[in-house]
Amino acid sequence: MLRYECTGTDGKARRGRLLTARGEVHTPAFMPVGTAGTVKGVTPAQLVSAGAQMVLANTYHLMLRPGAETVERLGGLHALMAWPGPVLTDSGGYQVFSLAHMRKLDDTGVTFQSHVDGSQVTLTPARAVEIQRRLGADVMMQLDECPPGRADKDHVAAAVRRSIRWARLCRDAWEAPFGPAAARHSRQGRPQALFGIQQGGTHRDLRAESAAALVELDLPGYAVGGLSVGEGHDAMCSVLDAVDEQLPADRPRYLMGVGEPRDILAAVRRGIDMFDCVLPTRNGRNAQAFTWQGRLRLRNAQWAADPRPIDEACDCYTCRHYARGTLRHLFLAREMLGPTLVTIHNLHFFASLMAAIRAAIEAGTLDEDARRWAERLCPDQGPRA
Amino acid sequence: MLRYECTGTDGKARRGRLLTARGEVHTPAFMPVGTAGTVKGVTPAQLVSAGAQMVLANTYHLMLRPGAETVERLGGLHALMAWPGPVLTDSGGYQVFSLAHMRKLDDTGVTFQSHVDGSQVTLTPARAVEIQRRLGADVMMQLDECPPGRADKDHVAAAVRRSIRWARLCRDAWEAPFGPAAARHSRQGRPQALFGIQQGGTHRDLRAESAAALVELDLPGYAVGGLSVGEGHDAMCSVLDAVDEQLPADRPRYLMGVGEPRDILAAVRRGIDMFDCVLPTRNGRNAQAFTWQGRLRLRNAQWAADPRPIDEACDCYTCRHYARGTLRHLFLAREMLGPTLVTIHNLHFFASLMAAIRAAIEAGTLDEDARRWAERLCPDQGPRA
Repeated sequence: MLRYECTGTDGKARRGRLLTARGEVHTPAFMPVGTAGTVKGVTPAQLVSAGAQMVLANTYHLMLRPGAETVERLGGLHALMAWPGPVLTDSGGYQVFSLAHMRKLDDTGVTFQSHVDGSQVTLTPARAVEIQRRLGADVMMQLDECPPGRADKDHVAAAVRRSIRWARLCRDAWEAPFGPAAARHSRQGRPQALFGIQQGGTHRDLRAESAAALVELDLPGYAVGGLSVGEGHDAMCSVLDAVDEQLPADRPRYLMGVGEPRDILAAVRRGIDMFDCVLPTRNGRNAQAFTWQGRLRLRNAQWAADPRPIDEACDCYTCRHYARGTLRHLFLAREMLGPTLVTIHNLHFFASLMAAIRAAIEAGTLDEDARRWAERLCPDQGPRA
Repeated sequence: MLRYECTGTDGKARRGRLLTARGEVHTPAFMPVGTAGTVKGVTPAQLVSAGAQMVLANTYHLMLRPGAETVERLGGLHALMAWPGPVLTDSGGYQVFSLAHMRKLDDTGVTFQSHVDGSQVTLTPARAVEIQRRLGADVMMQLDECPPGRADKDHVAAAVRRSIRWARLCRDAWEAPFGPAAARHSRQGRPQALFGIQQGGTHRDLRAESAAALVELDLPGYAVGGLSVGEGHDAMCSVLDAVDEQLPADRPRYLMGVGEPRDILAAVRRGIDMFDCVLPTRNGRNAQAFTWQGRLRLRNAQWAADPRPIDEACDCYTCRHYARGTLRHLFLAREMLGPTLVTIHNLHFFASLMAAIRAAIEAGTLDEDARRWAERLCPDQGPRA
C-alpha cells in the first residue's frame, strides 16, 4: 500500500515521505519520465546514481507497444524497466487527447486510432484500470478527460463532470476487479494505489467542484491535471493557490507534467509534493543542460575547446568525466553518448533541485531560497517563484 | 613505454601481457572501437564493467572532427574519451583508402576531401605521426597504403614498398619530432609507441618482404594489415600461417580490423596477440547479440514475450536485468537503450571469449577448445578454426 507522511512544513510547502511497497520517496519529489518503459537513453543504474527515486511510465505508449498483455507476460513494468523502485503510470488519457487521432468520445470512454498499427483502440475507465493492473505500477492514475488549454468554460465544466464519473468507475474497478481478493492489487499481486485527477482549467469554481467530488472518493492520492497546457506561469500559480484548501493534507499531491524549475518552485510553495516532466530528458537529448546558473546550449561553438565540465560544482558522472568541448563534439558527431551524458546531468540537476528544496523546507527558508534560485535559474523569465 | 611479455605458449598461440604506462593488457586481447572518441553508445564505466582493457580510436574521424588541435586543447584523447586505460590510434590511412573521396596519392602522402566540410586534407607520414602525437594515444600506427582486396599483385607490391618507405618516415618523426627531448612521447608528455603495419595482400613473398623491412626498423610492435578485406577465412589463415616466423617473438602482433570470433580463434592459434573490430558494437546497434550458442536477432517476433535474458549463463549488466522481450520492444520502439544494452552484452561476450582463449592457452587446450567453440559460434560457417 501507499501512505503519505508529512514530516514538516514551511508555509504551505510540505516536507514528507511517500511510503510504498517498493521503498520510500522523499517529497517534494521529481519523477523522470520513462515513456515506453525506459527513461530515454539511460540505464536504471545510471538513473539511481543520478538521484531518481520514482519514475513514471506512459500507459498510452505501453498499451500500444508492446501491449499490456506482453508487459504482463514479461513480469510487469518493474521487470520490463529493470527498475526495482516505485513506478507511477498515467492512465493514457492525456496522450489520447494530445497525441492520438481521436475518433469518438462519450461518457463510456474514448476510442482512437493506434499510431503504431492504425488499429482502433478503446479506453474506458474500467479498461484503463485493467491495463494498469497488468502493467503493475505502484501508483495508477484515473482515466480523465483533458480538454485543450484554450477550451471554453462549458467544455471544461463538461470535462470536469465526466472526469468525476470516470474517477468513480476507476475506483470501482480498482476496489473490486474480480472480487475483493484482487482489490487494490496488480496482476503481479503487488499493492497498487489509485490517484484521482483534478481538472477545471483555470476556473476556481470548477477546480473546487472537481476536488470536492474526488476527495469524497477517499483515494490514496490526488493529482492536479490540466495545467502546463499553455495557461502561463501566473495562471498556474492562481490555480495552485487553492490546492492547500481543496486537497486533503494527509494525501500526496501530484502536479502532472510540470516541469520547469521555476514552476516546480512555485508549486512546492503552494503545497505540491510530486512532479513529472520530460524536460530533463528531452532537453538533454537536444544538448541543453540545466545548471544553477541557467541553461547551456552545448552545440554552441564557444564550447568547442572548453575543458570545463557543464557545471564545476556538479558531481554527476558527466561532470566528473566530460568537458563541454567533448559533449559538443559528441553532439556534432551524432554520437548516442552525447544525449545519454547530458540526460544523466539533467536528471542529476533535477534531483539536486528537489533535494535543495527539501532542505530549504526543513530549514524554514524556502521562500527566500526559492526566490534567489528562480532568479538564477530563469534569468530571462524574471525572479517570480 | 610499451613492452610485451610472453608468459606462455600453446602451439603458436601466445599468452602474454602488454605493459603500458596506462596499465597492463592481458593478451590475446580484443580492443573495442571508439571511432569518434567514444565506443558508440556506452560510457567508460560500462566499458570497464563489460571487460574492456584497451580501446582503439580512429585518427581519420578525429582529425576531421573535432580536429587534432581541439583534442589536444581538451587534454588529449584519454581526457576526451574519459578513458584512463591504454588507447591505440590507427593512422587514418585505412579510412582514407576505404571511406574518403580520394584526390591524389604519391610517395609523399595522400590528399583527400573531408566528409565533414569538404575541405582538402593531406596526410603524410610525418603529419600522421604529428596528429597522433596531439591525440596522445599509447600506441600509434604508421601511415600505410591499403590497396583494395582485389588489387593485382603489381599494385599490392607497390603499396608494400610505399608503406615501407612511409614506415621509415613515421619512425623518424616518432624518434625525433622536435629534437630528441620529445622523442617517443605524445604532446601530453606521455610515452607513445609506434607500430609498423605489414601489407602484401595474400602474397606470401610480399608479406615476407614487408615484414623483413619493418622488423629492421626495430619498432615496439607490428600489425598485420590488409586482411579481412574480402579475401575469405582460408586465405586469411594462409597469410597468418607465416606470422610466427615473419614477426619477432618479443613484440606484440596486432591483426587489424578482425573480427569474427572464428577469425579471432584462427588468428590466435597462429600467434596473434591483439584485435580490433566494430562487430560487437555495430551488430549490437542492429539488435544482433553474440552468444556461445550462436547469434540472436532480437527483433524477431519469437522473442516478443520471452522473459529469458540473451544468454542465461552470461553475467553482463544486460543479461542480469533485461529479458529478450524487453530488448525486442526497445528496438521496435526505437529507444536508444536497446543499442546500448546489446552493445554492452556483445562487448562482454568478446571480452569473455578472449578470457576463455587466454585460459585455454594456459591450460594447453586451445586447439581442441577452439574447434569446439568455432562449431558452436558459427554453425552456418562450419567448424574450421
